[in-house]
Amino acid sequence: MIFRYDFGAPLDTGAVIRHIPAEKGVPGFFDVSREGEKIRFSIALSRDDMIFGLGQNVRGINKRGHLYRSWNSDEFHHEETTKSLYGSHNFLVFRRTEGNFGVFFDDPGAVEFDLGYTSADRAVITSENGNLSLYIIPGDSLKEIVRSFRRLIGRSYIPPKWAFGYIQSRWGYASEEELRHIVHEHRSRHIPLDGLCVDIDYMEQYKDFTWNSSTFSDPVSLNRDMKEEHVRLIPIIDAGVKEEPGYEIYEEGLERGYFCKKADGSNFIGAVWPGRSLFPDFLREDVRRWFGRKYHALLDTGLEGFWNDMNEPALFYSEEGLEEAYRQMDMTKGENIGIDAFFGLRDIFGGIANSPEDYRRFWHDFHGKKVRHDKVHNLYGCYMTRAAAEGMEEYDSDKRFLLFARSSCIGAHRYGGIWQGDNTSWWSHLLMNLKMMPSLNMCGFLFTGADIGGFSNNTTEDLLLRWLQLGVFTPLMRNHSAQGTREQEIYRFGLQEDMKNILTVRYGLLPYLYSEFMKAALGDECMFRPLAFDYPEDDLACRIEDQVMLGDQCMIAPVYEQNARGRYVYLPEDMLMVRFRSAEDYDLLPVKKGHHWVDLQLNEMPLFIRRGCFIPLSRGAEWVDAVDFSSFTLIGWLDDEASYSLYDDDGCTKGWSLEAGIRRIEVSKNGDGFCARGKELALDPGGLLG
Amino acid sequence: MIFRYDFGAPLDTGAVIRHIPAEKGVPGFFDVSREGEKIRFSIALSRDDMIFGLGQNVRGINKRGHLYRSWNSDEFHHEETTKSLYGSHNFLVFRRTEGNFGVFFDDPGAVEFDLGYTSADRAVITSENGNLSLYIIPGDSLKEIVRSFRRLIGRSYIPPKWAFGYIQSRWGYASEEELRHIVHEHRSRHIPLDGLCVDIDYMEQYKDFTWNSSTFSDPVSLNRDMKEEHVRLIPIIDAGVKEEPGYEIYEEGLERGYFCKKADGSNFIGAVWPGRSLFPDFLREDVRRWFGRKYHALLDTGLEGFWNDMNEPALFYSEEGLEEAYRQMDMTKGENIGIDAFFGLRDIFGGIANSPEDYRRFWHDFHGKKVRHDKVHNLYGCYMTRAAAEGMEEYDSDKRFLLFARSSCIGAHRYGGIWQGDNTSWWSHLLMNLKMMPSLNMCGFLFTGADIGGFSNNTTEDLLLRWLQLGVFTPLMRNHSAQGTREQEIYRFGLQEDMKNILTVRYGLLPYLYSEFMKAALGDECMFRPLAFDYPEDDLACRIEDQVMLGDQCMIAPVYEQNARGRYVYLPEDMLMVRFRSAEDYDLLPVKKGHHWVDLQLNEMPLFIRRGCFIPLSRGAEWVDAVDFSSFTLIGWLDDEASYSLYDDDGCTKGWSLEAGIRRIEVSKNGDGFCARGKELALDPGGLLG
Repeated sequence: MIFRYDFGAPLDTGAVIRHIPAEKGVPGFFDVSREGEKIRFSIALSRDDMIFGLGQNVRGINKRGHLYRSWNSDEFHHEETTKSLYGSHNFLVFRRTEGNFGVFFDDPGAVEFDLGYTSADRAVITSENGNLSLYIIPGDSLKEIVRSFRRLIGRSYIPPKWAFGYIQSRWGYASEEELRHIVHEHRSRHIPLDGLCVDIDYMEQYKDFTWNSSTFSDPVSLNRDMKEEHVRLIPIIDAGVKEEPGYEIYEEGLERGYFCKKADGSNFIGAVWPGRSLFPDFLREDVRRWFGRKYHALLDTGLEGFWNDMNEPALFYSEEGLEEAYRQMDMTKGENIGIDAFFGLRDIFGGIANSPEDYRRFWHDFHGKKVRHDKVHNLYGCYMTRAAAEGMEEYDSDKRFLLFARSSCIGAHRYGGIWQGDNTSWWSHLLMNLKMMPSLNMCGFLFTGADIGGFSNNTTEDLLLRWLQLGVFTPLMRNHSAQGTREQEIYRFGLQEDMKNILTVRYGLLPYLYSEFMKAALGDECMFRPLAFDYPEDDLACRIEDQVMLGDQCMIAPVYEQNARGRYVYLPEDMLMVRFRSAEDYDLLPVKKGHHWVDLQLNEMPLFIRRGCFIPLSRGAEWVDAVDFSSFTLIGWLDDEASYSLYDDDGCTKGWSLEAGIRRIEVSKNGDGFCARGKELALDPGGLLG
Repeated sequence: MIFRYDFGAPLDTGAVIRHIPAEKGVPGFFDVSREGEKIRFSIALSRDDMIFGLGQNVRGINKRGHLYRSWNSDEFHHEETTKSLYGSHNFLVFRRTEGNFGVFFDDPGAVEFDLGYTSADRAVITSENGNLSLYIIPGDSLKEIVRSFRRLIGRSYIPPKWAFGYIQSRWGYASEEELRHIVHEHRSRHIPLDGLCVDIDYMEQYKDFTWNSSTFSDPVSLNRDMKEEHVRLIPIIDAGVKEEPGYEIYEEGLERGYFCKKADGSNFIGAVWPGRSLFPDFLREDVRRWFGRKYHALLDTGLEGFWNDMNEPALFYSEEGLEEAYRQMDMTKGENIGIDAFFGLRDIFGGIANSPEDYRRFWHDFHGKKVRHDKVHNLYGCYMTRAAAEGMEEYDSDKRFLLFARSSCIGAHRYGGIWQGDNTSWWSHLLMNLKMMPSLNMCGFLFTGADIGGFSNNTTEDLLLRWLQLGVFTPLMRNHSAQGTREQEIYRFGLQEDMKNILTVRYGLLPYLYSEFMKAALGDECMFRPLAFDYPEDDLACRIEDQVMLGDQCMIAPVYEQNARGRYVYLPEDMLMVRFRSAEDYDLLPVKKGHHWVDLQLNEMPLFIRRGCFIPLSRGAEWVDAVDFSSFTLIGWLDDEASYSLYDDDGCTKGWSLEAGIRRIEVSKNGDGFCARGKELALDPGGLLG
């Protein structure tokens, strides 16, 4: 059962797809209080209560003990105490001694989550605008609660199969020649590769839907040549549109009144990469249709995937903000600038970007009403993603395109994937990558992954290698880095052979990973889960922060500390540890339920398979289309018979179906060993231990 | 044996106290190369080699895998990839398959340590000025290498015994009344307390050696009343001297030419808390004598301790830098500020503080020669500490005063302690606190500790409680926080009872901790050591990053993760785990050598005592002077007889002596139990397990 409670005048955000009639009265779990426009929802916590969810955020899988704020932010330097990242995912699951429940705050504005931060024994959630629908899902099983929620918000986006390949990316790829060179460096060394992301560098002066004609003179040939190498090009599209007379998008948007406007009706000007820019009002259906169709010309060049960026929207400054900053700066001249004045001085320009004032300067037309941006801030990225997705749907309604974005809220999960935002080459961000996977899955975001190796700052080769060992499992597996940082392509490092070997594991596991992804998407399940979901009675398992369940068969536990040669792992049941060095070089070690130290050299990564389960391992390949989805070695620790439901489909159309896509693999005892059967499959039971 | 090699024209930094004649030729361990002024020392690393040392720095006990730069910096927001902190401690210990050695780069300028960062298999150390003495200490035993080094650099600073008590501190204590209130809140709740640090707030307009006469009208009475409560007041002194006609320090320094000067001979003006300020040239003996004597007036009011701050020196801006920033800012007006210009704009004021240009604008008179500041930058803090220490020595040569500072280099360890710099209320900084302890000890800094609870940002009550559980063991145990952050005194939190109980453990262990500190100081040993020092043959132990040896009897392993209810611990030998809730409430659990998960609720902290050893536990008290140093419960896991050498002295004079201070406690089997003997000691063997 799902209960809905309305407060104030909730807007239809588009987050949910099922209509639930609103209850009268207030929800029993919370004390509700008002303070001006704000509404506070307060609940006592016992010492053992835990809180899951909140999607894209820093810190633990258990979110207790910090203050989070849903406010989509270009937080490229996020740390342990950062409150807001790129997405706002207001779904929480409370695991309580007094009864579990899930709760979704369907609120497009700022929402603050004080989860035992101010006071260790209380969670207080505050809607800053006070207009929201609250959905409450009581239940015993955390898995069930999340499944109910996922059905409420609708099926998650499904990308083409090739998008599960390894993608190389960098802000700074400056020309066709450079891209061709990168592909050559991968292919000549047999480093697998399926995609190349191009960042803002391909555009002419950072103008959406343009190519820099001197550095990318022939996109059609480039795309064709790349595809011959089995590599897809994936360009970036930004939210802001350059103010430039004669530039088609600008002129059309201006003429039709498609950009966000100030209270006086004039266009709002904010600056992003191209400098002064205007912002399409994606909350309008006609604007979405217009912007979505702009992708068509790019699709015509053979492109099949895009990433949308800067759609919080990021604002370097506004016209008004810049003027004010100069004014304040001028006032300080000639003063003896002491402590307070000095910090103020630094903040004038340090705080000019993404300022709360600027987000109050412009308005949307949402469902026919004028709404000030800050009241619906967290919807902007979602509706840009929707514009792109609907544009592609219109272009070819049966074809899957790759689409992932930076900013999002719940609802966006139906239109595209997300990456985990602009992270840093920090070991702590490798661990954060792991922790965010189940939290995002709960909120509907299945196609996701972090910038492997880290976006800002310089990576080190051991960090990249260890991060790849986690990236092997994330649906989006992209190595991405920022201009000005150390170049991060695998072939640049002394440890490239180890890295390449780890990539073979990705391609070897691809049939299994694709199968588990699709089953999760089509069944409204989480591909990645906290151990608490699968072992609710095991208090030790419930508090584990550095291991997560992957699919129905596996648990992952990457190494995330520099110079480590192993790690501790807690097994809530007997499992088979596969210690991979490559798809062809691995050890199988049965490990009993309990605490274990496992040795893992720098080139080794573990996968834990539950006893009684097995997984199919393919030989792999250098690109997805070459992976054999019908011939497998089976790996597992079995007592007697067992089975696995392998899902597969054509990977490029939308003709997915759980019924049609499942091929069952059956394993049974055969003397000392096992024999395996599966329709149209070649199966080698050599990796099954009894 | 210690070998010295000179390069360029080394300056006498004062770091070492023994003269070692310089060798001819180059040191065998390194490839040495030059590039302009720079000298590079390069050494190949095998996959298993480890590197210890580097004192105050981020990241691991094993420093391998990062790029560090010795350049004393006011880095109040340090992260995983920060290269420079407040101190420069250029001593490294290489643990190599090809032979261990220690190396000290006695270089007062910038030195870069690329320890397997650019290339995983190579360490490259670069002296930017190329004038240095290199000391090499080959050896098998890491402990021996460090002991040799410590003898080279001389005995570590020893504070008065009361300084081992709990100290409460905050930037923001604004008046006498507030201080009296804080003491009252502690005493009335029986929360132990020995010191109160006052930050810049007590001064009149941030002027050194002044009191704000309206808020601190009667320092003598205040000091007297505090001492009646057994609390010492500990004021801050900053490096910069306010430019203000009529202000004694400014006028005297100006008249006598004691401030650092620019190339043209005029005084260098930089801004710190008071705005425009001048910087005493502490590298001159006469300036040190003058500045050191300024402490006398404060000592006359009854003060017995100080902390020196801002002595990197921190520079908010220089006259010249500010002018240039305004000029650059004005040039951007009216432009369409795109990507590059925007980041440039933010950096104009964002990069104005502590700028490399400013550190090249002023000069010192060092050993009679003019030296540009950047060439000797890392000495400044050390020589300020020395000025203060020598001033106090002159005031009363037999009395111990508390003195600790922010900035330091090796050499400063003889004059005062250091705190670990302006940290943040991050769980990762709790762990960093632990990791820095052995690294600092190797470099001579024994009296040290971090800002418990975290300086910047808001703490949470669980973070403060867990951090106190580590702080129990650090010689400097100070709770400190910044203005504008959440107030952090123990009595403000719901978990205050748990926190108070943890403090009783500090006071109960105080005789043991003081004994181990004094034995380490007088014997040139490390009180805190990596496990690699004590278990060199145990490869697992050598790589442990979250447990350290404490004294000769113990190992510590704090909980440093939010919401954790325990942690993994590796025992390199059998140990007795003491699980403390308070000095009077604890469990004793014998634990066998090997890997273990240990349960530790939020109010519980562990201490591990080596099998065959025991420690004395006192009843504790609410201040140090009330702790009974002669009556103990003995705790340990013994097979037969055992002994402990308890050091004690009067704690306030310099009449320390290992010989005179040791009282031996002898334990022997007595039927099923043990009996204990120790001259003039009352001993209860009730905590000894057989």
